[in-house]
Amino acid sequence: MSGKEFFTARTVAEALAEFRPARRTKAESVGLAAALHRVPAEDVVAPAPLPGFARSTVDGFAVRAADTYGASDGLPSYLDLLGAVRMGAAPEVAVRPGGCVVVPTGGVLPEGADAVVMVEFTAETLPGCVEVTRPVAPGSGLVRADEDVVAGAALAPAGRPLRAPDLGMLAAAGVTTVAAHARPRVAIVSTGDEVVPPDTAELAAGQVRDATASALAGLVADAGGEPVQAGIVSDEPGALRERLTDALVDADLVVISAGSSVGARDETAGAVAALGTVWCHGLAIKPGKPTLLAECGGVPVLGLPGNPLSALVVFRLIGVPLVWRLAGCEDPPPEPNRRARLARNLASAAGRLDVVQVRLVDGVAEPLFGPSALLSVLTRADGYVVVPEPATGLDAGTEVEVVLYR
Amino acid sequence: MSGKEFFTARTVAEALAEFRPARRTKAESVGLAAALHRVPAEDVVAPAPLPGFARSTVDGFAVRAADTYGASDGLPSYLDLLGAVRMGAAPEVAVRPGGCVVVPTGGVLPEGADAVVMVEFTAETLPGCVEVTRPVAPGSGLVRADEDVVAGAALAPAGRPLRAPDLGMLAAAGVTTVAAHARPRVAIVSTGDEVVPPDTAELAAGQVRDATASALAGLVADAGGEPVQAGIVSDEPGALRERLTDALVDADLVVISAGSSVGARDETAGAVAALGTVWCHGLAIKPGKPTLLAECGGVPVLGLPGNPLSALVVFRLIGVPLVWRLAGCEDPPPEPNRRARLARNLASAAGRLDVVQVRLVDGVAEPLFGPSALLSVLTRADGYVVVPEPATGLDAGTEVEVVLYR
Repeated sequence: MSGKEFFTARTVAEALAEFRPARRTKAESVGLAAALHRVPAEDVVAPAPLPGFARSTVDGFAVRAADTYGASDGLPSYLDLLGAVRMGAAPEVAVRPGGCVVVPTGGVLPEGADAVVMVEFTAETLPGCVEVTRPVAPGSGLVRADEDVVAGAALAPAGRPLRAPDLGMLAAAGVTTVAAHARPRVAIVSTGDEVVPPDTAELAAGQVRDATASALAGLVADAGGEPVQAGIVSDEPGALRERLTDALVDADLVVISAGSSVGARDETAGAVAALGTVWCHGLAIKPGKPTLLAECGGVPVLGLPGNPLSALVVFRLIGVPLVWRLAGCEDPPPEPNRRARLARNLASAAGRLDVVQVRLVDGVAEPLFGPSALLSVLTRADGYVVVPEPATGLDAGTEVEVVLYR
Repeated sequence: MSGKEFFTARTVAEALAEFRPARRTKAESVGLAAALHRVPAEDVVAPAPLPGFARSTVDGFAVRAADTYGASDGLPSYLDLLGAVRMGAAPEVAVRPGGCVVVPTGGVLPEGADAVVMVEFTAETLPGCVEVTRPVAPGSGLVRADEDVVAGAALAPAGRPLRAPDLGMLAAAGVTTVAAHARPRVAIVSTGDEVVPPDTAELAAGQVRDATASALAGLVADAGGEPVQAGIVSDEPGALRERLTDALVDADLVVISAGSSVGARDETAGAVAALGTVWCHGLAIKPGKPTLLAECGGVPVLGLPGNPLSALVVFRLIGVPLVWRLAGCEDPPPEPNRRARLARNLASAAGRLDVVQVRLVDGVAEPLFGPSALLSVLTRADGYVVVPEPATGLDAGTEVEVVLYR
């Protein structure tokens, strides 16, 4: 046991601002039904205006607005009923001065008309004659042919994950495939002589099942990535380097859930340093200090602490934005959060970011303490509170922002 | 054109509190790798305690705490070094009074020891002899065999969607399959003579591509459901009833994206009423008034307004919690939101809930106005603000909660 570690320590803010690998996944063609939360590699452009024709927004009568000026209940305008527009069909009749045409909501505005009067402000007292009791301005009761989107405009911008309404907009424009960044492949390597696969029925003395890899896979999927389980590596010298070399071949990011002992951590740092450039070894965060950030042949490598809780805290703060960025999204979707008052004082060291798991009880944030060896601290939490780097703690009663898990 | 509609109008609050179909999807066995956000049908119980053995949380020396009492830099305790614990293996030596054993972080606590001294507070000045310069209390530097989870405790509760850390906890416990509610199958039926599939290259006059179905599929997927596109139905009498009958066979929820004209809406209400019980026809919400809620043979049916914007607003508020509930989750995961000040006054009618799309610009919520026929109002928005039912409007400068899209 050496007891020594060589840290090139950084703050979380530095890591987020300065560890920015250039790698981006390639664009691929994605069908609309699979495009939710995928990141367009370029602006998706409207091939034609939408809705594509002047369209009524009410059930009523297409008119020339000038024919309705001055109309009132006492002195209606009388218009000749010239015909009706059918849904989904071209109008068979135009509107001439003094005339009107029945048009349903969504129907095409007939030629000659420049407004639609709502049926509520009309009466058909004599067959073939419509009384209009309210004046309408040109353009009222309709949307223009390019009012939703003009041709050539961006239907969805590059770099922003597609949301449900975006899919609707693309469908409306007839865009059924999108050039989107491929999901980043995130290889997850677990290390440690004590670590065995989750499906190990009976544990021998000292063995633990690999919790971190399954949890990381969930966080990767939530960030739009594709988790690739790269298995468990023993602490034997050279074993990690070999597995890492393999994983680097077709991964966009390699995450190492490191062994928890000092020796295992040194082994991780050594293996990574042999294959690339270590950007930092040590992060001013609690929990999560023994974090390693590196780049090996253009592929970012994230070495996580051995404790599952610490590993997941660091991956959420550092790894999740990295996965989004690999997919071309610089500004990840917002996480849910709530304001709440702290139930207890939180201590922290200046210059270190503290991540404290909390439960929300009646709008009060109750910190959950316990060794970071306990995963239950995380599964019992509703979210977490960050004590920022400059602060030396937060007093009970302080209003804080709780980032909620979902 | 009848111009008449028979509304059994309800408020959104009533719909959420009182329209609660009893249907739940069946439980199925789901592997861990596919279990993210799935809803356990029963508590997932720990078959054994975790971590399963008393485990060191530091790199150091396993000791009997009593042997360290009074130790200081000036007057260390001297302990005999009896051996070392290897990671992932049973200790080969016990700790006797006056002795200590090297133990790595995560290693098994040897018999006889009741604490671990961190290596930082020790020195090995003579071979075989360890100086301890700080006293430790029993239980320090370790977690107990059942400190993370006791046998029989809930690893993950029924009814709460599984989060990434839950997957880690299940993996740690060797639980590799979960009895989870099946994803609710949500059949999406579009209606309207003017509506054509998104892959229609050239539109004839008056035709529009089906935007709502693709967007709804995205919202359904976000809510953990499985969207099933049930196609487009013409406004021809009887056509919807036939399609609805088919869709009801194996759907957990049927959503009808209704035609936008009064005639089409009447047709929808008629078809649904013929097959089940209409709970409400008309919701005190803007946009989204012509909403229909019904139950047909135990399957909830949601009739949405014809405008895509209105349809998506209503589905988000009413449909999304319904999909979660069908999967056994009464309390859907939180949505992201931010507090912001309103840039402009918002008008509303008392007794009606108004949903206003907004952009967030420098922390100010700028309302986006425009006919609900425009989908671009929704795709340009960062989120929405609700003007609650009792309010008659909100003044510019009011601090509001913006629910953010992601």
